[in-house]
Amino acid sequence: MVIVLKPEATEQNVDHLIDRLRSLGMVTQITKGKERTIVAVLGDDRVLQGQPLSVFPGVESVTPILAPWKLVSREFQKHDSVIDVAGVKVGGSRIVIMAGPCAVEKLEITVGIAQEVARAGATILRGGAYKPRTSPYSFQGLGQEGLEFLAEARRQTGLPVVSEILDARDLGHFLEKADVIQVGARNMQNFELLKEVGAYDKPVLLKRGLSATIKELLLSAEYIMSRGNRNVMLCERGIRTFEPQYRNTLDLSAVPTLKEMTHLPVIVDPSHATGNWKLVAPMAKAAIAAGADGLLIEVHSNPECALCDGEESLKPSRFTELMNDLQKVAQAVGREL
Amino acid sequence: MVIVLKPEATEQNVDHLIDRLRSLGMVTQITKGKERTIVAVLGDDRVLQGQPLSVFPGVESVTPILAPWKLVSREFQKHDSVIDVAGVKVGGSRIVIMAGPCAVEKLEITVGIAQEVARAGATILRGGAYKPRTSPYSFQGLGQEGLEFLAEARRQTGLPVVSEILDARDLGHFLEKADVIQVGARNMQNFELLKEVGAYDKPVLLKRGLSATIKELLLSAEYIMSRGNRNVMLCERGIRTFEPQYRNTLDLSAVPTLKEMTHLPVIVDPSHATGNWKLVAPMAKAAIAAGADGLLIEVHSNPECALCDGEESLKPSRFTELMNDLQKVAQAVGREL
Amino acid sequence: MVIVLKPEATEQNVDHLIDRLRSLGMVTQITKGKERTIVAVLGDDRVLQGQPLSVFPGVESVTPILAPWKLVSREFQKHDSVIDVAGVKVGGSRIVIMAGPCAVEKLEITVGIAQEVARAGATILRGGAYKPRTSPYSFQGLGQEGLEFLAEARRQTGLPVVSEILDARDLGHFLEKADVIQVGARNMQNFELLKEVGAYDKPVLLKRGLSATIKELLLSAEYIMSRGNRNVMLCERGIRTFEPQYRNTLDLSAVPTLKEMTHLPVIVDPSHATGNWKLVAPMAKAAIAAGADGLLIEVHSNPECALCDGEESLKPSRFTELMNDLQKVAQAVGREL
Amino acid sequence: MVIVLKPEATEQNVDHLIDRLRSLGMVTQITKGKERTIVAVLGDDRVLQGQPLSVFPGVESVTPILAPWKLVSREFQKHDSVIDVAGVKVGGSRIVIMAGPCAVEKLEITVGIAQEVARAGATILRGGAYKPRTSPYSFQGLGQEGLEFLAEARRQTGLPVVSEILDARDLGHFLEKADVIQVGARNMQNFELLKEVGAYDKPVLLKRGLSATIKELLLSAEYIMSRGNRNVMLCERGIRTFEPQYRNTLDLSAVPTLKEMTHLPVIVDPSHATGNWKLVAPMAKAAIAAGADGLLIEVHSNPECALCDGEESLKPSRFTELMNDLQKVAQAVGREL
Repeated sequence: MVIVLKPEATEQNVDHLIDRLRSLGMVTQITKGKERTIVAVLGDDRVLQGQPLSVFPGVESVTPILAPWKLVSREFQKHDSVIDVAGVKVGGSRIVIMAGPCAVEKLEITVGIAQEVARAGATILRGGAYKPRTSPYSFQGLGQEGLEFLAEARRQTGLPVVSEILDARDLGHFLEKADVIQVGARNMQNFELLKEVGAYDKPVLLKRGLSATIKELLLSAEYIMSRGNRNVMLCERGIRTFEPQYRNTLDLSAVPTLKEMTHLPVIVDPSHATGNWKLVAPMAKAAIAAGADGLLIEVHSNPECALCDGEESLKPSRFTELMNDLQKVAQAVGREL
Repeated sequence: MVIVLKPEATEQNVDHLIDRLRSLGMVTQITKGKERTIVAVLGDDRVLQGQPLSVFPGVESVTPILAPWKLVSREFQKHDSVIDVAGVKVGGSRIVIMAGPCAVEKLEITVGIAQEVARAGATILRGGAYKPRTSPYSFQGLGQEGLEFLAEARRQTGLPVVSEILDARDLGHFLEKADVIQVGARNMQNFELLKEVGAYDKPVLLKRGLSATIKELLLSAEYIMSRGNRNVMLCERGIRTFEPQYRNTLDLSAVPTLKEMTHLPVIVDPSHATGNWKLVAPMAKAAIAAGADGLLIEVHSNPECALCDGEESLKPSRFTELMNDLQKVAQAVGREL
Repeated sequence: MVIVLKPEATEQNVDHLIDRLRSLGMVTQITKGKERTIVAVLGDDRVLQGQPLSVFPGVESVTPILAPWKLVSREFQKHDSVIDVAGVKVGGSRIVIMAGPCAVEKLEITVGIAQEVARAGATILRGGAYKPRTSPYSFQGLGQEGLEFLAEARRQTGLPVVSEILDARDLGHFLEKADVIQVGARNMQNFELLKEVGAYDKPVLLKRGLSATIKELLLSAEYIMSRGNRNVMLCERGIRTFEPQYRNTLDLSAVPTLKEMTHLPVIVDPSHATGNWKLVAPMAKAAIAAGADGLLIEVHSNPECALCDGEESLKPSRFTELMNDLQKVAQAVGREL
Repeated sequence: MVIVLKPEATEQNVDHLIDRLRSLGMVTQITKGKERTIVAVLGDDRVLQGQPLSVFPGVESVTPILAPWKLVSREFQKHDSVIDVAGVKVGGSRIVIMAGPCAVEKLEITVGIAQEVARAGATILRGGAYKPRTSPYSFQGLGQEGLEFLAEARRQTGLPVVSEILDARDLGHFLEKADVIQVGARNMQNFELLKEVGAYDKPVLLKRGLSATIKELLLSAEYIMSRGNRNVMLCERGIRTFEPQYRNTLDLSAVPTLKEMTHLPVIVDPSHATGNWKLVAPMAKAAIAAGADGLLIEVHSNPECALCDGEESLKPSRFTELMNDLQKVAQAVGREL
């Protein structure tokens, strides 16, 4: 940590600050420049997180030096983490496509879509049983029954299943029925939930909150890993900006940035990010070109009648076409589907 | 709802759309202009929420006419709601100051701060027992013991208590110990939690998510009210913008806007919004001038050693001074503390 | 335009509004629903731009139906515009790479970089003679001399030149020396400048302002085209968001969105968007995968000593490598460099 | 400046960096911690602005210590600047209200509004002669004739005049006819214009760009002051955020923040910020409570027919009422109108 003092800081101010730092176990080194005095705090400055050093008299600014996380960091683990999802490897050279309906509706529709996406080459089935909906008057998901339908679709297609958890009390069902537990954007900082999914080794797909910084996303992953669960996948799904033309702004710069900062796999969800099926194909290709390890794509056999997010769902025929196109882009960047 | 058709929409497209709208129980009226055809959908268009009408062939745009909420609306209830918090009225002509430490730490500190803020004129005690912290390595709050300390401070000062809930499983403790249940910014769209606090009549302080729109805040309040709980207070606490100079950007335009759209009381939290004690006083005054019904202000007897958010906490002496200043501003806008 | 009236709107309110609309030459049709009355305004509602209809008594909301532009629209011209830049076609199947230094420094450096990027396959040379710098104490560019150096580099390499104009009074020099006039992000709404570059047929590269919406970008292009200049290229170069990890957030969803809304070519500048040379390669690939018609890339022979934006400049060797990679991605999406 | 090295930085990397810093005239001091090595660069690090030190091998991060400006800083001048606008003092204890129409339309309307706002207590007349309009099809202002009308209104009312300049070529007219030259939000980083208005001592009202940080605003003011003009007033007029409910989000935290960082007066424009006349009164009061030195308020005798921004204009009667209310708020915070 580097603390810069105000020009008018007194000797007393400096002593008071140094005393406090020492009482917290820190070693300090003072550099007096012509314009400012700098206090370098040596050692692991993570223990200073949350210390309100900026309110000490005479302090102008406080800059941490070390990242506030450990386990998620490339510094901690150099090689890429590869997560095993019921046999499907996420984070290796092969790009993983997770596809399926936004919300699980009926058994036969769910199984039908699962068969279609499997045929097209998807290797994981996505589907929402519990749905976080902005309005209390929108369809709220089938709940536990939806998880059953997904499990049945898995039995018939062999595709492992990813589904979103909304409430820690449902964790038992997810541990039993799902292969990947999705923690959605709205729950990225539901720290109790993070701690609980961190207590198992079931893979977790952690979505970036819609106004979460890269650092906050990594700290949320750190919550999960610090409880023991190393099977964490990160997911960029669009951030909130001033631009009203699409639902959110897909932040693809996050992909190479995360790949440099962390060893965890990075997935992209172009469907939720854009909220518009016409943008899914170009942004899916762009995500792979940017280095994503996988994609989440919404597919529905009848988008006009989908109970949730029909606007962004691809019909199976378009999805099949897209898979062909993605294969080409993957090869262009030295990977494959 | 108003649906605008593309210039190239065919008769078939129009018929297909009208059929769908009729099957959903809607009456439609078609207006053919020179440049575009407009379909006006009559009746309560709230039932169309979530219908992906924009993916129908030939549709250019879909604009709802009615707000997606009912119970929170001024249209539904013209007069201001006044919430009774253990005898303290929130939403009337008197402005309510809720003050106290960010996090509850020790019993004697908590009681001491409570006494100081009561003496200065605060009428509700705030304090965090469960703390949502960005990093897993930060102080996470005392939990249930913190609620006990707050209850003891209430016994000694008579101040009702507001505290934040993080997990629906703690609801029992909150119903017993707290006078107002705070749903924090990170949980504004934790819909399961909203539904559960909606099942009681205990007052709820619902904070705006840091990237939530006014509309989303109102829909989250609607979640609570639609379950029966009418005692909802809204709280503006800063939104996330590009400006790095303060923690968040306090959006005071939300105050008069909410007062026009809803009958619910509107509280402002200048401490969390700015993250800087120097900005608390000017922004507290500004909030009252803008029409806020109350303020949440962090006060700590020793900010340098606070375990959470010491940067933004006022010392009791400064808080007392601020209360005097706020009284003057309140009177200038025809209210009082 | 669709105008929705408040439930409490009186007959008088309606008559007053209709009178005003008629006096502006509009034909109206009124639809009375159970909840609201809707006034559909027929005809070209562009003439109503700027009319403050929302302040009329009884008006709840005003929604335009037609886009506020004409000439830039796909509705106006279905086929892609292809701009001829001294023989290089921009907007056709071939993707155009514009590369070179951020700022023009010395003649021999400029010519040297031009030769390197030409060798690697770039077809247009970029370089800043006039530099918009946030601080008055930063290098402000060589000005007119810089344009001379670029012209000399063009003579030696055959590459047409794109350079940014800051002041309409320099237009004569640009018309003479540059092949494309760049209007930078900070000048996207310098309407006087737009009008003046609109008076010639010299190609213009119009960069999106860092907080400009897609609609505002199109309206700025409309300014240029409405003065007669049809040779406009749009450029996405990152928008300002809350994320501090990169200089700006590259908004690649803008690429397919613009391609659908307008016939103009769309260029992407990954260098300025990210401000970090490590992100340039992945984002350049992603831009092409998303459908961009060209790229602007900063290349400098010695980034450590560049007078401007060395952080984001690629060395020539890395640029050559990137060109090979881009060729593969271009082919994967059915195009070529 | 503080430079932190990566854990894997070699001796060679350090030497290379130190050599470069020395060649730029800097003195350095190296502190080796257990986790990182820190290089403190002593002396005025403003000369390092624009040096791409972060691309040097082995460098992890670069943090400047000194603010990049001088003349605008409180460190440079402790006391508040008070600007004399034809006898009206801006920046002293008296709060200055600048009111008038968004756009100058006709002579008699302009004079009429000027008389009304003068009667209500405004001390400066605002009015736009040259109008920056998002669409080329909107009313673009009267230009030079508009300046004449304003000058005539000044003759009849004695109110000094503030008006916005769009093009440096009009500077002569402004020097002659206006008392304050407004540099609008869109031109906050039109550096050529800043330099030119900096060459005179005519007061300048510099508006914050709609996505400009506080630091960028101060740097733009530094541009003007570094050319010799000390008569600069800053203006907060709303920033662009994700919230669609108002035109922009008025950032009142900027007021006390700027007052701490700079000695220059701070004005607030609630009319443009909100774009909605109903929000003008509460936000005007809030601005004064937050410590603003003045307000810019749009007033129009017939908002329904205003050629520009009628939505946000107050009628003279409402403005008169507001002036009474503002007087009370000003007194509550120890000032007066």
